[in-house]
Amino acid sequence: MTRGPRYTPLADSLPATVPFVGPEAQERARGRAFRARLGANENVFGPSKRAIAAMERAAAETWMYADPESHELRGALAAKLGVTPAHVMVGEGIDGLLGYLVRLVVGPGDPVVTSAGAYPTFNYHVVGFGGRLETVPYRDDHEDPEALIARAGATGAKLVYIANPDNPMGSWHGPETILEMVEAVPEGSLLVLDEAYIEFAPRGTAPVIDPDDPRVIRLRTFSKAYGMAGARVAYAVGAPELIAAFDKVRNHFGMGRIAQAGALAALADEGHLAEVSAAVSVARGRIDEIAAANGLVALPSAANFVAIDCGRDGAFAGRVLEELARRDVFVRKPFVAPQDRCIRVSAGTPAMLDVFERALPEALAAARSG
Amino acid sequence: MTRGPRYTPLADSLPATVPFVGPEAQERARGRAFRARLGANENVFGPSKRAIAAMERAAAETWMYADPESHELRGALAAKLGVTPAHVMVGEGIDGLLGYLVRLVVGPGDPVVTSAGAYPTFNYHVVGFGGRLETVPYRDDHEDPEALIARAGATGAKLVYIANPDNPMGSWHGPETILEMVEAVPEGSLLVLDEAYIEFAPRGTAPVIDPDDPRVIRLRTFSKAYGMAGARVAYAVGAPELIAAFDKVRNHFGMGRIAQAGALAALADEGHLAEVSAAVSVARGRIDEIAAANGLVALPSAANFVAIDCGRDGAFAGRVLEELARRDVFVRKPFVAPQDRCIRVSAGTPAMLDVFERALPEALAAARSG
Repeated sequence: MTRGPRYTPLADSLPATVPFVGPEAQERARGRAFRARLGANENVFGPSKRAIAAMERAAAETWMYADPESHELRGALAAKLGVTPAHVMVGEGIDGLLGYLVRLVVGPGDPVVTSAGAYPTFNYHVVGFGGRLETVPYRDDHEDPEALIARAGATGAKLVYIANPDNPMGSWHGPETILEMVEAVPEGSLLVLDEAYIEFAPRGTAPVIDPDDPRVIRLRTFSKAYGMAGARVAYAVGAPELIAAFDKVRNHFGMGRIAQAGALAALADEGHLAEVSAAVSVARGRIDEIAAANGLVALPSAANFVAIDCGRDGAFAGRVLEELARRDVFVRKPFVAPQDRCIRVSAGTPAMLDVFERALPEALAAARSG
Repeated sequence: MTRGPRYTPLADSLPATVPFVGPEAQERARGRAFRARLGANENVFGPSKRAIAAMERAAAETWMYADPESHELRGALAAKLGVTPAHVMVGEGIDGLLGYLVRLVVGPGDPVVTSAGAYPTFNYHVVGFGGRLETVPYRDDHEDPEALIARAGATGAKLVYIANPDNPMGSWHGPETILEMVEAVPEGSLLVLDEAYIEFAPRGTAPVIDPDDPRVIRLRTFSKAYGMAGARVAYAVGAPELIAAFDKVRNHFGMGRIAQAGALAALADEGHLAEVSAAVSVARGRIDEIAAANGLVALPSAANFVAIDCGRDGAFAGRVLEELARRDVFVRKPFVAPQDRCIRVSAGTPAMLDVFERALPEALAAARSG
């Protein structure tokens, strides 16, 4: 039996890498669970009680496929955003929507611009469809809008990606900067504005963008502020022609029924969102204090995580991360220098941050002596 | 603002069709709900109580991403199937897995063989990646293994698709026929054996296939016998090299956490599966009787639906379907002649089949006078 499938040349050329290793795989390798799960940009404060109740109710209804048009959820999102349902596409997380978008736009050899060290799953999709990644460095731990736009113009990029707030650094740009970026998008480029963390950002950070503007697509999610990462629900907002194009390639029956019900209920519970934002803000402050108590600097963050500058290079931060894991604290770190001098810590519950607070000085000492 | 994204030539060429319109869209157009939802190949008997309980418990944990390796579920599936976890890939429904498989194997112009009128979502993916569909007709309302293999050989097809039992006809082949098909797969072709409905088939219908055989990939799902269509969980079984290739393109964090928990619990409840199979068998018998009482022939079925031959052509069956919808019964029908002379009715609950029983004679009379 030496025969088998003939893969496409592109599939044959792809590496077998994955964007992230899950904490569960690390726990299996370690042989025990983490006590502080602070590495996956999850929202430890969880979903709205109303969302949980809606998901519980929907569990018995899973014999039915979900509405493939996500009519109710798209309607609710459109009402909230002041757009029409034709401006909104619901999908299986931002990861899923990015995959569809890249598939629609990026063919073999097509240039795409992003920042060196920005969201790896976007890169995974670009490479997966044969695109050519063009990266520009961060500037002062911020993605660099001017450099991104300049590179897009110079390379004829089909997509130019920015996350605001940024992952993994937590830094952000004000609405004017994003609007200037939209105005400067080169002809034939589409700005991919990943707003996964926007609800954690200072009020007014999200710019008002004409929803019919064909130069930009915004991506938002229920995985972060709404605390529903495991449910897989996100949405794109853009010009109706672009939104309609998703129907050519998406998995029409791919949305979970429980997920849609949960998202709909979550969207209606603005009080919970406010409580979570407040709790995240408190936790960020606590992380700042823990960092300072250890002589480290926590970077300002508009997300539900904080990048802590460990004060040396990436190898040192990597040792800190390993030593934290040894002490049952799961965190991750940026992949690319100079951002990789940091570790990235989620805005945890008080109990999780207690664990982190106890572990950090030991981890630093061990890393320094290593 | 005349500018916008530049789609790939393939994306530009794709139609904006969808494989199926959901019943919810029909309900919105009608302005009222169906009383008998018997058209979407759903399992009205629903999930195991243990699966529902597991999903309810998981609802509060949706703040966490699911394990991207689906370690527990793959392990449980492997144990049940007598293979290793490396032979099993878990994905977002068979639709999701088919999308990944087609992406891995089918490039522009690549030939793919299926039956005329077989599962449209497979075709959707093939067209979506630029493949060339080669179809062979059904023979006596069965997919025709010899013709499929012959066409695969003649065209150099990269994939050859068969569903056993078949959707939409409910017909099936015995294990020897499928094994002969595997042996006859032309070099360079991969047999896609869609066993979505296999748990409803007579005992022994599923052949024993060497899990290391590189000529075939089997697809199974929690959407049908396990009653969890809305949860989006399915799995592929195949040679480890092929299974590993999915990691190059799949949405690694695409599986829902509630879905995985539910599937794991469902898998352990074999009693429920037996009860559902018995209930489906009773419902198929009832559909046979209803058909006979109206002078129609119900085709033998090994799935959880029954194709009823309406005795005339596709246009007539289409009128029957419309008249049923007018009477609040949602069913679908095959798309391609001569199978399209049938309507396809899910094995419903007694109450749903009561509605169908009352509606059918009226619908037939109206269709005949139409």
